[in-house]
Amino acid sequence: MTSETITGPDFSCSNGLLPAIAQDVETNEVLMLAYMNEEAYQETLRSGQAVYWSRSRNRLWKKGEESGHLQTVESIAIDCDADTILLKVRQQGVACHEGYRSCFFRQVSNDGVKIHATRLVDPKTIYPSTND
Amino acid sequence: MTSETITGPDFSCSNGLLPAIAQDVETNEVLMLAYMNEEAYQETLRSGQAVYWSRSRNRLWKKGEESGHLQTVESIAIDCDADTILLKVRQQGVACHEGYRSCFFRQVSNDGVKIHATRLVDPKTIYPSTND
Repeated sequence: MTSETITGPDFSCSNGLLPAIAQDVETNEVLMLAYMNEEAYQETLRSGQAVYWSRSRNRLWKKGEESGHLQTVESIAIDCDADTILLKVRQQGVACHEGYRSCFFRQVSNDGVKIHATRLVDPKTIYPSTND
Repeated sequence: MTSETITGPDFSCSNGLLPAIAQDVETNEVLMLAYMNEEAYQETLRSGQAVYWSRSRNRLWKKGEESGHLQTVESIAIDCDADTILLKVRQQGVACHEGYRSCFFRQVSNDGVKIHATRLVDPKTIYPSTND
C-alpha cells in the first residue's frame, strides 16, 4: 500500500485486528488502547460511538455498553502505515474498568511501578459483573 | 496477573510484542505507535531513549538511529492490563518517516481520507535509504 492509495485502515495487516488509541479530545490525554477489526471500525464510523473488538470476549464491544461510560468519537486518524487507528473522543465517566480516567495510571521507572492518578470511581460499584 | 502483582509490562502477552505509544510530553500529541519486546523495553529504560522492535527489519530499532530524529523518554506508563506501553517523549525533528511531526496525519471520515497536518520535512532528503 503506497501513500497515495491509502483510503482507510488496512485490515489486511495484523490478522485484521488493528490497535486503536482513544485520546481525550479536550486534553489529549491517552485514555486507552483497544483493538478494532473492520466491522468494529465501520460500526464506529457509522454510529459515532467507539466500538472495539473484544479479544477476551471474542465479539464486538461498544465501549460503555454495560457501564454507561461511552466514548463519542469526534475524529478518527490513521497512521502512515494505515495499521493503527487514533480516535479523539468525548469520554463519559472513566475509560478504565479500574475506575481511573485513563487506563495508563501506572508509571514505571527503574525504581518500579507507582500509581500516578486518582481513582475516580469504585469499580465494584460501577462494574459489578463486567470488565468493560 | 492481578492489579496488585503488576511490576511492569507483561511480555507474556501478544507473543512478547507490546504496542508502545509515543506521545509528545509538551503537547500530548500522539506521535506514533510502534512495538516493544522485553529487550527494547529494558534498553529504553536503561538509556532513556526510545528503542522499539522493528517488525519489518526484525531487530531492535533505536528511533532516530539513522535520521537523527531521536525520542528522549521523559516518562513511561503501562495500562491496566500491563499489555500496552505509553511513552512521553521529547521528539527531535519529526516522528514520521513521511516528514510529518506525527504519523497520524491522515484523518478518515465517512467522506474519505484527508491530510490534516503540514509536512515539515521532505522525506527524500532526510531519509534517503531508510524508513526510520
